[in-house]
Amino acid sequence: MSILVVGSVALDSVKTPLEETKNVLGGSASYFACAASSFGEVRLVAAVGEDFPQQYMDLFNEKGIDITGLQIEDGKTFRWSGVYKEDINQRETLSVDLGVLENFCPELTDKHKKSEYVFLANIDPELQLYVLNQIENPKLVVCDTMDIWIENKKSKLLEVFKRADIVMLNDSEAMQLAGEPDITKAADEILKLGVKYVVIKKGEYGVMLFTGYSRFSLPAYPVKNVIDPTGAGDSFGGGFLGCISKIDIENFRDNIILRALVYGTIMASFTVEDFSLNRLANLSEYEIKKRIKEFIKIPDVRKLTQSFSYV
Amino acid sequence: MSILVVGSVALDSVKTPLEETKNVLGGSASYFACAASSFGEVRLVAAVGEDFPQQYMDLFNEKGIDITGLQIEDGKTFRWSGVYKEDINQRETLSVDLGVLENFCPELTDKHKKSEYVFLANIDPELQLYVLNQIENPKLVVCDTMDIWIENKKSKLLEVFKRADIVMLNDSEAMQLAGEPDITKAADEILKLGVKYVVIKKGEYGVMLFTGYSRFSLPAYPVKNVIDPTGAGDSFGGGFLGCISKIDIENFRDNIILRALVYGTIMASFTVEDFSLNRLANLSEYEIKKRIKEFIKIPDVRKLTQSFSYV
Repeated sequence: MSILVVGSVALDSVKTPLEETKNVLGGSASYFACAASSFGEVRLVAAVGEDFPQQYMDLFNEKGIDITGLQIEDGKTFRWSGVYKEDINQRETLSVDLGVLENFCPELTDKHKKSEYVFLANIDPELQLYVLNQIENPKLVVCDTMDIWIENKKSKLLEVFKRADIVMLNDSEAMQLAGEPDITKAADEILKLGVKYVVIKKGEYGVMLFTGYSRFSLPAYPVKNVIDPTGAGDSFGGGFLGCISKIDIENFRDNIILRALVYGTIMASFTVEDFSLNRLANLSEYEIKKRIKEFIKIPDVRKLTQSFSYV
Repeated sequence: MSILVVGSVALDSVKTPLEETKNVLGGSASYFACAASSFGEVRLVAAVGEDFPQQYMDLFNEKGIDITGLQIEDGKTFRWSGVYKEDINQRETLSVDLGVLENFCPELTDKHKKSEYVFLANIDPELQLYVLNQIENPKLVVCDTMDIWIENKKSKLLEVFKRADIVMLNDSEAMQLAGEPDITKAADEILKLGVKYVVIKKGEYGVMLFTGYSRFSLPAYPVKNVIDPTGAGDSFGGGFLGCISKIDIENFRDNIILRALVYGTIMASFTVEDFSLNRLANLSEYEIKKRIKEFIKIPDVRKLTQSFSYV
C-alpha cells in the first residue's frame, strides 16, 4: 500500500576517520524512500534546488519512487556536512545550508492526500504538521525527529507526536527529551500523548520498543565494516514502515511491529556499509531476504521473533 | 494434563485489622492445588500431622485433587501465624511450627514421577530439589519461593532456579535477591541461570513478566474488599500453571504465558476476598469466566491481551 514521506533530500559531505565524500545524495527522505521502496509504492515529498544532480533523480526513478511531490525550486539544494570521530557513533555537524528548504511549503496532490501510510521524516516539525494536515485519512502515522527540534521547537514537536501512532527517536534524543539519562521516562512521556508505540534507536546496540504495558529489545545486525552511519535511522524507518505497509492489516499488533523492527534493522545494516545511498541503490530482494534469515538465527533475535511465531 | 505440586499444607492463624482466624487451612500447596484444580488434574505432594481436620481432606477430594501423595505422619501439621498491618501489604510472621515438615521426605509414586507439569511451591529448596529429581521427564517446571530461603539457602535455591523454566518471586524477594531495590537486576540474574521466564508478583500492583528480550506489565484485578491476602501468590501460581497445562502446547510462547498471567491474576483475586481457602472452595467456573471477561475489559489489560490476539 502507499507510503507518503516528507523530509529532506540533501547533498551531504561526510568525513569519516578513513575516507570522505563531497556533495553526495543524502537527506532523511532520500534514505527512507529508497529503503521503503523495496516493499511498495513510496511517494516522496521534498524540495531540491536547480543544482540537484540528474543522476539522483534517475536513482529515485529506478527505485520506482513517485517523485511528483519532489519540487525543484529556484535556489540551492539543502546541504549538510559532518564528521565522524574515531568512535563512529560520535558525529559532529560542520555546516548546514538550508537552501530551498527555507521556504519549502509543500501542497499535496489529491492522490497524495489519500496516502495510507505517512512517514514524517526528520525535518522542521511545523513542516511535518503542515503535510500531515493535508492527509485525508491516514491509516498509520510514523514520526521521526532530531535533536535540534527537541531543543528549539519542543512544543511544536509534541504536537506532531500527539498526532502520530508511532514515534522514533535516537537514545540520545530520548534522554534529551526526558531531561535526564532515562529513555524509559522519555518513552513514557511520549506514550502519555496517546502514541501507541515508541521506538528507541540505539545504533549498534539495536532498538527498543515501548508500548506502555510492555517493552522489547532487538539487537542490531552485526555489520562487519561500518563505512558511514549517516542515514541509518532513516533507512531503519523505511524498512520498518515498508514492512508494515506490505502486511497492511487493519489492527496493528505487537508481533507485526516486531517484524517491522527486524526489517528496519536489516535495511539500516545495508546503508552503513557504504557512503550515501550507494549500498541501497543496488540492493536486491535476495540480499535482503538472505540477511533477514541470517539475522533471525542470532539467539536473542530468534527468541524474540519466535516467541510470537511471526516469521 | 497432570500437574504435580510440592509445598506446604498448613494450619494458619491470621489476624487482619478487622478480623482473625485460628488454625484454618493454609499452606502454599493447598492454595496452589485448589486454584489449579479448576483447570485439570492436580497431584498434591505434602505432609500433614494426625491433627489435620478431615473437613480439609474432604475439600481436597471435592476439588478432585489427587491426595495419594499427601502423607499423614506422626506429629503435628505445620502451623503458621501472622498479622497484617493497616497497610494490608505489610505482613509480620508471629510464629512458625514446622511439625511434620521437619522430617518430610516424599517418595513419589511411579505415576507421580511421570507428571508433566511441576510446581515447586514455597518450601525448603532442598525439598524442592528432592522432588524434582524424582520427576522423569517434566515438560515445564515452575518454581516459587520465600524470603527465608533467599536469606538462608540462596545457593541451594539458585540450584533449583537453574532447573526451572519459570521462576516466580514477590517484588520484595526480587529486591532481596538483587541486594538492591532493582527488580530488573534480580530478573536478569535469574534469567542468566537459563530460566525462560521470570514472573515478579507485586500484589495489588499486578505482575511483571521478564523474558530477557522483553518485559510485560499486567495490573491486578481491582478487588473491592480485600479480607486476607494470605495465599494470593500461591493461588496466582495455580491459575497460572493450570492455564498452561490446559492449553498444553509443545512450544511455550509469550502469548500463552501472558494468558496464564491473566488466569493467575484472577485466581489470586478470589483468594483474597475471604480467609483461608473459603472463596476458592466454592468457586464456580462461571465466576472465573465472568471475572476474566470483566478483567480484560480494563484498558491496560485489553491492550496487552489484544496485542497478541490470544483471547
